[in-house]
Amino acid sequence: MARIGIIGSEGRMGQALARAIADAGHEVAGGVDQGGNTANLAEACDVLVDFTAPPALEGNLHAAIGAGVPILIGTTGLEARHHAAIDSAAQAIPVLQTGNTSLGVTLLAHLVREAAARLGPQWDIEVLEMHHRMKVDAPSGTALLLGEAAAEGRGVALADHSERGRDGITGRRAEGAIGFASLRGGTVAGEHSVILAGEEERLTLSHVAEDRMIFARGAVAGAAWLIGRAAGRYAMPQVLGLD
Amino acid sequence: MARIGIIGSEGRMGQALARAIADAGHEVAGGVDQGGNTANLAEACDVLVDFTAPPALEGNLHAAIGAGVPILIGTTGLEARHHAAIDSAAQAIPVLQTGNTSLGVTLLAHLVREAAARLGPQWDIEVLEMHHRMKVDAPSGTALLLGEAAAEGRGVALADHSERGRDGITGRRAEGAIGFASLRGGTVAGEHSVILAGEEERLTLSHVAEDRMIFARGAVAGAAWLIGRAAGRYAMPQVLGLD
Amino acid sequence: MARIGIIGSEGRMGQALARAIADAGHEVAGGVDQGGNTANLAEACDVLVDFTAPPALEGNLHAAIGAGVPILIGTTGLEARHHAAIDSAAQAIPVLQTGNTSLGVTLLAHLVREAAARLGPQWDIEVLEMHHRMKVDAPSGTALLLGEAAAEGRGVALADHSERGRDGITGRRAEGAIGFASLRGGTVAGEHSVILAGEEERLTLSHVAEDRMIFARGAVAGAAWLIGRAAGRYAMPQVLGLD
Amino acid sequence: MARIGIIGSEGRMGQALARAIADAGHEVAGGVDQGGNTANLAEACDVLVDFTAPPALEGNLHAAIGAGVPILIGTTGLEARHHAAIDSAAQAIPVLQTGNTSLGVTLLAHLVREAAARLGPQWDIEVLEMHHRMKVDAPSGTALLLGEAAAEGRGVALADHSERGRDGITGRRAEGAIGFASLRGGTVAGEHSVILAGEEERLTLSHVAEDRMIFARGAVAGAAWLIGRAAGRYAMPQVLGLD
Repeated sequence: MARIGIIGSEGRMGQALARAIADAGHEVAGGVDQGGNTANLAEACDVLVDFTAPPALEGNLHAAIGAGVPILIGTTGLEARHHAAIDSAAQAIPVLQTGNTSLGVTLLAHLVREAAARLGPQWDIEVLEMHHRMKVDAPSGTALLLGEAAAEGRGVALADHSERGRDGITGRRAEGAIGFASLRGGTVAGEHSVILAGEEERLTLSHVAEDRMIFARGAVAGAAWLIGRAAGRYAMPQVLGLD
Repeated sequence: MARIGIIGSEGRMGQALARAIADAGHEVAGGVDQGGNTANLAEACDVLVDFTAPPALEGNLHAAIGAGVPILIGTTGLEARHHAAIDSAAQAIPVLQTGNTSLGVTLLAHLVREAAARLGPQWDIEVLEMHHRMKVDAPSGTALLLGEAAAEGRGVALADHSERGRDGITGRRAEGAIGFASLRGGTVAGEHSVILAGEEERLTLSHVAEDRMIFARGAVAGAAWLIGRAAGRYAMPQVLGLD
Repeated sequence: MARIGIIGSEGRMGQALARAIADAGHEVAGGVDQGGNTANLAEACDVLVDFTAPPALEGNLHAAIGAGVPILIGTTGLEARHHAAIDSAAQAIPVLQTGNTSLGVTLLAHLVREAAARLGPQWDIEVLEMHHRMKVDAPSGTALLLGEAAAEGRGVALADHSERGRDGITGRRAEGAIGFASLRGGTVAGEHSVILAGEEERLTLSHVAEDRMIFARGAVAGAAWLIGRAAGRYAMPQVLGLD
Repeated sequence: MARIGIIGSEGRMGQALARAIADAGHEVAGGVDQGGNTANLAEACDVLVDFTAPPALEGNLHAAIGAGVPILIGTTGLEARHHAAIDSAAQAIPVLQTGNTSLGVTLLAHLVREAAARLGPQWDIEVLEMHHRMKVDAPSGTALLLGEAAAEGRGVALADHSERGRDGITGRRAEGAIGFASLRGGTVAGEHSVILAGEEERLTLSHVAEDRMIFARGAVAGAAWLIGRAAGRYAMPQVLGLD
């Protein structure tokens, strides 16, 4: 049983984390929000979980270093200087930073990389996603993460091969392209498919999130995994034993 | 057993029609191509099937009228004056004109219209299609036909509600929008899905073409159905007994 | 705004109903449970919703008749005598009895009936469902309801054409069979697909429930629809304007 | 460009192989059928491909050994003594024996093994397949191969955990079970999905065969890969660079 401290405990993710911690048989060591005393929380827990905003990052890392506890960073919108701060903190404590804490998506990205590496560029790759009607950007961050995994598998840069927003007279599909398409509607929590289409056969690798709670569950699994690790910077694939 | 005459018999569709006619237990009454004698063919058959090009349309209609035989027109790219010529011919003989001869797609469009009419605009509608890597336009003609069916079901004009090529910061989905997304890859003959996404539930109506032969099969079913009908202009839904 | 009375208000469905009533902008007129005074509740509301157990049915119908309010019956496990009691009550008040209150499933069954009627028995019909790991029976009640709709569309009895639990040397598929297959796993709320497979083309009509709340929502829509109707027995398709 | 000899050249697979060899830019070195001279064919080619029947196996291996050419064995229904003969031949020449020559299915099995190994037994595994109406057995051989891959990933024996033909009162899903379900209809060439269903999320790994030609294509890829290898027994995963 781990004692987990929640930074950003009153937000939607903070509340989901509290439920996920209880479901997994761990204990909420406490929570802080804007203006709260993160240093005290750090002293009282085995690991910190931070889903807040970039300006809070540096203070949170200092609190973790001060108490010598590991920290999982799920905050999004990080820039180069935030990543530099994380690298620096990772010399003193274990830090896991990730843009997606779902174990299923983490594994899917690994399988996509492997499939793209094995099948070669004559298999066309398409990434399809569907989300609820309130989502304001397309493709989703997870779709781009999966496209990156495909590009890595092929040893190319996604930016050079991305095909987005098909509409009108597009011409034939470019060889080696990685296509993206986005569906929006209803209350869909998040569905992603990567299709590898060859000569008369197709492989489709998909993930369905039934509920956004899976991100809290994965964060808790990642936080628990961090306890007792050596100082260093980690990522979600390692939680699943992937390289 | 019907004797079916093929106009455009040496094209890819003409050859597929010959196979489909034999498969269905009918007889190929003969075939003509550019410069051939369509009038003679019309005299020797129970029904004509025309998959050629718009400039040949008027001559083909005259041959059918001269022999008093029905004709199915699958030629694409028709303009207003071609439709006027068809309307005029339909005063003398039965004419079935269609841009899609698949029975499955014809039924799907009917089901989409019905679903859109019953569920109301708080259910978001999305049309997804996948085709082979050689296709040069998006969305497919069939996807647009399905979008039209959805718009008809709602009593709105598709042009006012169409949402295509989502990419970047799109903002929330517009209420009442009908979205389109296109996948391209491999050798996919044609797959279409219409998704109606409501509060925590979704209806998906899909069609998969395993082979382009289905268009020839549907054309043969339509041609056989035309024999013995009263003069008039018909469409594919009537072949399935739909109003 | 309707005042809706909940019989069985403390059960899981009763609680979901309370949320769905609020979400839809209606008002919970009150709730009763075993031993409660249903007659008083009936007097205080515009419509009753009953998700309890068969032994309570007769008393609930009497209360509704006494107050002259309509009632929606979602209780399952009804036998012939319960249906007779409902028919009798329906001479005095509007009664809607149903085994599935989802609007999406109701429409799906209608579309399946229509598709099966139009396409003819050379299109093979399969019903596939997936539910969470705790479900103890297969196929699901909804899968059977969809199979019944397909059989009705064809004008045959499901009992004579049902093909269930395929395993081992089954021989070729019987002509006209309606097949069933069941998947179990995880926390899936309920997914159903009806596949119509013809020569080289396939139609698939699917429903996904993201959450069991949809049954409460549909019940509330049905209850609101019942208010002001003539006495008689009604069913869910009528709520969607289907015959 | 490889010169490929076809044993069983007049069968359906033999004819498909001839087309696949030409499509891939190789050359058909010749073909033999029952009673033909396999030894002469072996002398004239770079590699042999054998899709015949078990009684012919030993003679075919001898011909390959005599000429010192590699051989791919796609013949099904092999028994222990046939496998012993293959092992023995593999001391002299490269031999690739397989029950499924599709590259897509080969990769899918690898991904399933990996996913099952990483996600642990609290993720329920289901294998779903659909084939045409003429198929007489269920589940398909490929579905069982995928189930085996899942069981290997978990380190258990499939025979101890297989759940087939669900129907009636089944009780809750057994922990650690690997379920199978089979759909039959139309002309479906072969579709397989492996579903891993966890708490509120699901991973689905699927393969669609649009045409049975993919087995011939994969066999040709395997045969070409065999040329120049050291003597030994090989399997399809190695053709894709998988261990």
